[in-house]
Amino acid sequence: MNDAFIYLDHAAATPLDPKVLTVMEPYFSDAFYNPSSPYSPAVAVRRHYENAKHTLAQAIGAKPDELVITAGATESINLAFGSVTGHVVTANIEHHAVLAAAGLHDHTIIASDGRGFVSADSVKQAITDQTQLVSIALANNELGTIQPIRDIAGVIKNEREARLERGDMTPIYLHTDASQGVGQIDINVARLGIDMLTLNAAKIYGPKQVGLLWAAPRVRITPQIVGGGQEHGLRSGTENVAGTIGFAKALSLASEHRNFESSRLAELRDQLQTALTTAFPEAVVSGHPKHRLSGHLHISFPGIDAERIVFALENRKVLVATGSACAANKGTRSHVLTAIGLSPEIADGSLRLTLGHLSTKENTVKAAHIIVEEITREYARTAK
Amino acid sequence: MNDAFIYLDHAAATPLDPKVLTVMEPYFSDAFYNPSSPYSPAVAVRRHYENAKHTLAQAIGAKPDELVITAGATESINLAFGSVTGHVVTANIEHHAVLAAAGLHDHTIIASDGRGFVSADSVKQAITDQTQLVSIALANNELGTIQPIRDIAGVIKNEREARLERGDMTPIYLHTDASQGVGQIDINVARLGIDMLTLNAAKIYGPKQVGLLWAAPRVRITPQIVGGGQEHGLRSGTENVAGTIGFAKALSLASEHRNFESSRLAELRDQLQTALTTAFPEAVVSGHPKHRLSGHLHISFPGIDAERIVFALENRKVLVATGSACAANKGTRSHVLTAIGLSPEIADGSLRLTLGHLSTKENTVKAAHIIVEEITREYARTAK
Repeated sequence: MNDAFIYLDHAAATPLDPKVLTVMEPYFSDAFYNPSSPYSPAVAVRRHYENAKHTLAQAIGAKPDELVITAGATESINLAFGSVTGHVVTANIEHHAVLAAAGLHDHTIIASDGRGFVSADSVKQAITDQTQLVSIALANNELGTIQPIRDIAGVIKNEREARLERGDMTPIYLHTDASQGVGQIDINVARLGIDMLTLNAAKIYGPKQVGLLWAAPRVRITPQIVGGGQEHGLRSGTENVAGTIGFAKALSLASEHRNFESSRLAELRDQLQTALTTAFPEAVVSGHPKHRLSGHLHISFPGIDAERIVFALENRKVLVATGSACAANKGTRSHVLTAIGLSPEIADGSLRLTLGHLSTKENTVKAAHIIVEEITREYARTAK
Repeated sequence: MNDAFIYLDHAAATPLDPKVLTVMEPYFSDAFYNPSSPYSPAVAVRRHYENAKHTLAQAIGAKPDELVITAGATESINLAFGSVTGHVVTANIEHHAVLAAAGLHDHTIIASDGRGFVSADSVKQAITDQTQLVSIALANNELGTIQPIRDIAGVIKNEREARLERGDMTPIYLHTDASQGVGQIDINVARLGIDMLTLNAAKIYGPKQVGLLWAAPRVRITPQIVGGGQEHGLRSGTENVAGTIGFAKALSLASEHRNFESSRLAELRDQLQTALTTAFPEAVVSGHPKHRLSGHLHISFPGIDAERIVFALENRKVLVATGSACAANKGTRSHVLTAIGLSPEIADGSLRLTLGHLSTKENTVKAAHIIVEEITREYARTAK
C-alpha cells in the first residue's frame, strides 16, 4: 500500500498480509511440485496442502473433506447453485454472483427492508414445496448489514423436517456467502446452522483468486469443472497449493485478531460516522444500525454527485467507493440502494467507506476531515 | 528448486521463473486494488491487467478481447466444451479433463496410433452432421507426440464449408489444448487454423492456477461462472491481476527463448535417450520419433516395476514420473499407455522423463548414469 493514500475501500479489495505472503513464497520456488506427483518432495507439498485445508476447516468448525477449494467466491457460489435443480430463493440486495446464479433457476427474489435486512419470515414466505436452495449472504457487501442467518437456518430446518414427515425427499439447503464478514464475525457452520458456506481469501488479506465452498455431508455437490478428479472429484484441476496455504494463514489470522479488530474498527467507524453526520445532519446512514459490520459505513449526502466526490477525494489521497466496486465502474446505480428504497437523489450521493487493516485512528480522523471539506465544497459549488 | 534434486518431471509442474515472480510482486502489495474500483490507482491496475491480456493475445496472434482468463487449463477445457451442445470428437490419449468434458456430451473417442499420433483422417471419419467440437491437444502430455493440428484444422474447415454450402448452420469448432508444447512450439492461432485454444501458465514457469481460453470471434462462448460480468461476461469473478501479469511474462519469455530452448532440450533429451537405449537395447521409446516435444522422453523397461524405480531414483535425488502426474498417484495404469497398445508388462515399466529449465548438460548426464544404475540393479534383483 502506498502510504500516501488513505484507503477506505477494504470491502472491494484487501492487500495481502505480509505474513500470508511469507507462507506462500516457498510454493512459488522450492516447493513448486505437482501435489499429485509420487516422489516425496511432491508428497510433502500434498501434505502441506491438506494441512492448509485442515486449518481452513477447523476455523469454521468443519471437516477438511467437506471443503472444495475454488478460484474465489463467484466460483463457489456458482458451484452451490449448480448443485440444485429446483426452485431457489435469494434476496434483492445480494451480490451479482448470487443473483446471476439464481437467474439460471426457477427463483423467488425476496425484498430486504430499508436497512438491507432480510427477515427469516420473508424467507419462510418465499419457500415453496419445490425450493431446494436459499442463499443469503452473511453480511451485505455494500451496507454491511448482518443477516439473521441462524433464524433463517431455523426456517430451513423446520421446512426440511416438515418434508421428511410427509415423506417428501426434496432436499432444501441454506447457502451463505460469508466473504464479507468473516474477518469480523465468528463463522462456525454448525452454530450458524447452514448447509453451504462460501468464503473468499481476497477479502481477508489473503491471496486473490482463491475461495472455498463448504458443504455439509448431506449436500451432494455437482462438479462444474470435470477432469483429473481433484477435490474429491468436485473441482478438477491441479490444486492451488500456494493460494490455499495463504488462505489458511489469512483465515487463521482473521480468527486470531477478530475480536480485537472488530472493536477497533467499530470505534473508528463510529467516530467517522459521527464526524460526518455532525457536519452534515441531512446525511443518511444506510444499513442496519445495530447488526452491521464494524468496518462498514454507508452514508449518503442528498443532492451530491458521489462520483464527483470519489475523484475529488482521490485528489486528496483518500480512496472511497460509491457502491460496490462492480457497479461503481459501470456508471449504473447500485441495485442494492434501489432495493432498500433510497431515492435516486440519495442513492446517487452515496459513499461506501470500509475500514480495515490499513485504517488507523490518525488516518481515519484525517479522512473524515478531508471528506467534510470536499462535501462542503461540493454543496457550495452546487448551491451557486 | 532444491539444488540437491535433479528434476526430470517438467511436464507435471514447472518452478515459477524468478523474472515472473518479480513482475507479479507489486500486485500482492502496493497495487492490490480491485480493478473495477473507480479511483486512479485501481484504474492503473485495470490497465496493467488489460496490457497483460494484450501481451498474451499478441503472443498467439490473437486479439485481447478474444481471451478469457481462467483458473487453469482444466477450467478452460470445460469452458470450451460447455460452449457446444452437440456431438464432440476427441482422442483416447487426451488428458482426463478433455475426456471427462467430452463424457458430458454425445461423443466419439478416436484411437491414436501406436505412437500417440492422431491422424487428420481419423478425425474426418469420426465427424458426423451433428459434430460441433473436435478437441485434440497440440502435444500429448505423456508421450510428447505433437499432433497434426493444421491438417485436422483443414478437415474442420472443409466440413464447415460443406455445411454452409448445403445451408446447414450447425457450427463446428476445433479446440486444442496447448498447455504442453507452448514453450517449445510456436503457437499462432491463425497459422494453426484452430477456433479455440487452451493455455496454462503453470506449465511454462508461470504462476499456477491461471490459464486462458482463446476463442475466435465466430465462437459463442457460454459462461460457466456467472456474476459480476468480468471477462466480457464470459467468466465472472474479480480478475486475477497478479496471475495474468505473471502469465503474460511467462509466455513472453517462452516465446523469446523458444528456439534456443527447444534445440537445447532436444539435444539433452537425445543424449539421455541414447544413453538409456544403449544400456538397455530392449527398452521401448514411445511417442512419435520425429513429431515429439523436444524435452520429452517416454521410455519403458520391460519387466521393470516403474513405481519402484521412481522411489529408487528419488533416493538418488532424481525425480521422474511413471506417467502423467494425475494417474501416477492413483496406482492405476495410464490410459494413454493402454491407448497406444503397450502391453501391461511394458506399460508398467514406463518412465516419463521431461526436461526443462532446470535441466543442464551436467545434471542430465548424471541422471542418465543414475537411471542406468538403478534399472540395472532392478533387473539384477528380479532375475534372482
